[in-house]
Amino acid sequence: MNIVEIIDKKRRGLTHTEEEIRALTRMMASGEARDYQIAAWLMAVCIRGLDTDETAWLTRAFVESGRQLDFSGLDGVVVDKHSTGGVGDKTTLALVPLLAAAGEAGHARIRVAKLSGRGLGFTGGTIDKLEAIPGFRTALSNERFAEQLARVGMALSSQTDDLAPADAAMYALRDVTATVESIPLVAASVVSKKIAAGADVIVLDIKHGAGAFMKTPEDARALAETCREVGRRLGRNVSTVISAMSQPLGCAIGHSLEVLETVRLLEGRGPADLETLCLTLGAVALIDAEHRMGLATEEARAMNRLRACLQNGMALAKFREWIIAQDGDPAFLEDPSRLPQARRIITLPAPRDGYVSELDALSVAKAAKLAGAGRLVKNAPIRLGVGVLLRKKIGDPVRAGESLAELHLDDPADTPDEAGALASLAAAFSFSADPVTPPPLLDEVVRASALA
Amino acid sequence: MNIVEIIDKKRRGLTHTEEEIRALTRMMASGEARDYQIAAWLMAVCIRGLDTDETAWLTRAFVESGRQLDFSGLDGVVVDKHSTGGVGDKTTLALVPLLAAAGEAGHARIRVAKLSGRGLGFTGGTIDKLEAIPGFRTALSNERFAEQLARVGMALSSQTDDLAPADAAMYALRDVTATVESIPLVAASVVSKKIAAGADVIVLDIKHGAGAFMKTPEDARALAETCREVGRRLGRNVSTVISAMSQPLGCAIGHSLEVLETVRLLEGRGPADLETLCLTLGAVALIDAEHRMGLATEEARAMNRLRACLQNGMALAKFREWIIAQDGDPAFLEDPSRLPQARRIITLPAPRDGYVSELDALSVAKAAKLAGAGRLVKNAPIRLGVGVLLRKKIGDPVRAGESLAELHLDDPADTPDEAGALASLAAAFSFSADPVTPPPLLDEVVRASALA
Repeated sequence: MNIVEIIDKKRRGLTHTEEEIRALTRMMASGEARDYQIAAWLMAVCIRGLDTDETAWLTRAFVESGRQLDFSGLDGVVVDKHSTGGVGDKTTLALVPLLAAAGEAGHARIRVAKLSGRGLGFTGGTIDKLEAIPGFRTALSNERFAEQLARVGMALSSQTDDLAPADAAMYALRDVTATVESIPLVAASVVSKKIAAGADVIVLDIKHGAGAFMKTPEDARALAETCREVGRRLGRNVSTVISAMSQPLGCAIGHSLEVLETVRLLEGRGPADLETLCLTLGAVALIDAEHRMGLATEEARAMNRLRACLQNGMALAKFREWIIAQDGDPAFLEDPSRLPQARRIITLPAPRDGYVSELDALSVAKAAKLAGAGRLVKNAPIRLGVGVLLRKKIGDPVRAGESLAELHLDDPADTPDEAGALASLAAAFSFSADPVTPPPLLDEVVRASALA
Repeated sequence: MNIVEIIDKKRRGLTHTEEEIRALTRMMASGEARDYQIAAWLMAVCIRGLDTDETAWLTRAFVESGRQLDFSGLDGVVVDKHSTGGVGDKTTLALVPLLAAAGEAGHARIRVAKLSGRGLGFTGGTIDKLEAIPGFRTALSNERFAEQLARVGMALSSQTDDLAPADAAMYALRDVTATVESIPLVAASVVSKKIAAGADVIVLDIKHGAGAFMKTPEDARALAETCREVGRRLGRNVSTVISAMSQPLGCAIGHSLEVLETVRLLEGRGPADLETLCLTLGAVALIDAEHRMGLATEEARAMNRLRACLQNGMALAKFREWIIAQDGDPAFLEDPSRLPQARRIITLPAPRDGYVSELDALSVAKAAKLAGAGRLVKNAPIRLGVGVLLRKKIGDPVRAGESLAELHLDDPADTPDEAGALASLAAAFSFSADPVTPPPLLDEVVRASALA
């Protein structure tokens, strides 16, 4: 079957065979299928869809298109966590040491192996945030990554180009042909990268809301279900946690600010929503990992073990160990001024008495970006000290003139758009005269081990 | 609005504005929109569709993308006829002189201006067929085309690249991205070329059936309606004749064979189905053209005038005039052996007594192609003397051993696949013991002037 016949089949809404999916990715890699043919197929997929079989075959083809990391020589279970991305989301920074600590405290030998991308959206990604820590090395060689995983049980590195290159090539086309929004294509992209990176247990944090990649709870659930099923067919445990991005996660948005909030969380003093999400994701990973080792861990016990690690200093100790392992200077743990800091702080006062009824995540992210915390164009530098610190969140009572949030800024000459940042931050808040119940954070938690 | 936003809009099934359609074709011409982006948009259009407004805007953008012929300096009305293509279809060869003759015999000064493509399908196109006539020049300069149109009232030339180049560019992409099958895209392509070629009155012969471009009568009617409406919005009379391609048109398939059948038709001795279609298309063109000159011509009178031209030799005289005008040698009109001829004729005998119940056009076309009458690859040479001559058509009674058809072949070494050709020809025929009523040829005739 040639490429035109394959495209035609999907145009007519028919279902591909495994051989067709393999032929398509093979022809894409060899250049036999041209970009415009892949683009036509992608649009047909966006509109007609792929069923679970087709999605699993595509995922496998992506995995096999490049290098596959193999940590089977290590004892224990390799865990990876991935988020579809959210404003103020620093869960990866906290979960890496928290899970490593909980693994040591429990029965399982958990290895947290995390490959991350740079931020392309409103604020930086995990890699950018870690670069706020002086000396922290975010690009590890394969050998060093594996050695560190064996020695301290956790490693994080920027993603290299040789994992699932077919997915990367397809993604580059999707980005410029309005074919990004497709649940099966997103699922194949996410799951293939995690499998190629050697994970046994994969926990996906899928967010929905106006500012999230998935706009509706229904789409988020459909993506979660597809990812779990694709993982199952490829012999991996994929669990999913769906949460609402109705407001930013935690209170800090910006690189240094988010690292410091992570420290507070690891000391057991983090914001409630961030802690809830970290404990939920952590418990899912812990139970799935121990299940893979033949252990049945109750949810309450998993939660307690994680909470204990926050209270007894083990999580923070593991964070220090991680920083040192990747050449970072841990002195900021005692002296926060060792991180890049903003030159000026502007306080946004409440315009009236009442209750915060809405706190739009996209507007807050835009404020941080205009302050210099995000990239306006690809590969642009990021100002690591600037950002937003929220003092009030949805449901909080406020008095007129009281601080709603702080805008952390560098010198005016180094600030892309100070007035725009302030306006966007102010526009993020809505108020009500009556008390407001904060929206629920967690929507759905499905553990792969519970389905097995 | 950038190209990604335009693609995204169609992906979501929304309707474009005129400005978006113009921006799209402009960006395509400038190279700002890349092939893969146009391909994604084409696939979205194939699945989501274009409404009549969008199709008319696209048609206009195609027309304006290149040169537009202008015959407004000539008196009379410029007529063009286009067919979506059928097996054994030589109506253009007959209609050019027939209409020119009927125009001279009537009140209207009719100019038949025809630009044709080469055949890409099973058998050659009109240009290929005319090249069977010794010396016939199929590529005319613009000046010569206009001069001939003024002097003898008819001219036919191979299509040049400078008419509707945006359509040509888009068609090249459609061909390799499985996006050919789209009624609005086909309509915009057909109508834009005719308008750019300077036609006032356009008659479209749209066929349906297994071997035709439109598979069902419904699709054929939808295409006809779209073409008429697009023509109306762009100030042209577009009429449509829908016919069924349930069997080949006439009895001759192959270049010399079709030219000779055309001669018989112009002498009033042509096969009934071919004559019916030619008179129907001719009457529509005649009435529309005279309507454009303010005359109301009754259908019966138009038909009579056309029939008279076949009977009194005027049509044949006009054919001779046309051949001479384009440097051809008309001697074959008296001596058919002056045309390229096959070296061998193989007769296919009827396997049984009965009635011909089916005569599959695609199988007949395949037989002619395997005999050497069609191109196996683009730009390949065509054997002008070979082909198929049908002796029986649907409904005809046959006796076992009687000739069903003749396969006209060159030497074995020059025949691509003789056994395959014979097998395909034999497979085209089905038989019934009971009498069979021939299927109706004409499905729907809609005259633009009757709608005005």
